[in-house]
Amino acid sequence: MSLRTLLTVPAAVKRGEPFEVRLLAQHPMETGYRRGSDGALLPRDLLRRVEARFEGELVFSAELHAAVAANPYIAFWLRVPAGGVLTVDWQGDRGLAHRESRRIDAA
Amino acid sequence: MSLRTLLTVPAAVKRGEPFEVRLLAQHPMETGYRRGSDGALLPRDLLRRVEARFEGELVFSAELHAAVAANPYIAFWLRVPAGGVLTVDWQGDRGLAHRESRRIDAA
Repeated sequence: MSLRTLLTVPAAVKRGEPFEVRLLAQHPMETGYRRGSDGALLPRDLLRRVEARFEGELVFSAELHAAVAANPYIAFWLRVPAGGVLTVDWQGDRGLAHRESRRIDAA
Repeated sequence: MSLRTLLTVPAAVKRGEPFEVRLLAQHPMETGYRRGSDGALLPRDLLRRVEARFEGELVFSAELHAAVAANPYIAFWLRVPAGGVLTVDWQGDRGLAHRESRRIDAA
């Protein structure tokens, strides 16, 4: 399963200063309640969970449900004591798993 | 324990159309690694979890960790089939629990 995602963070931050992390995934978030053009229910297909790790340590995670809009967008703020790699893992129905990483320098 | 929070949603939305939910809490997110002016470690005091329910059904939840910046801000998008009440529950260290609700009309 493939997923197009966008992980937006500053390339460089100041140690200990907050910066915004923006996560975006191109995904229909099909609820399982809608009918297709043939009248049959479209099977549920949701992104279920997203986890963000900085240098391997879990820093933020979220569980998504059917009411989350298509192409999920989530934003939050982090602060880090030193530079490192932020890794974001998306998990969804049908065995979907997708990882994206970004290096963040801290001065 | 009291917490000042801000739950920002449109007062009225269109059924099935995405709208942004913004959560803000006034909280130090004390990591437990910092020292106070007396040199002693400041005790860890974190907001740990936030849950959003629409008409009682869980629609989004997030787990926060020490790297989340003070005064946590989280944004995401929902879509709802009809009007109702969005309720947000924050949970944190030291038994902190706080609830905020907003009515959302849908036409």
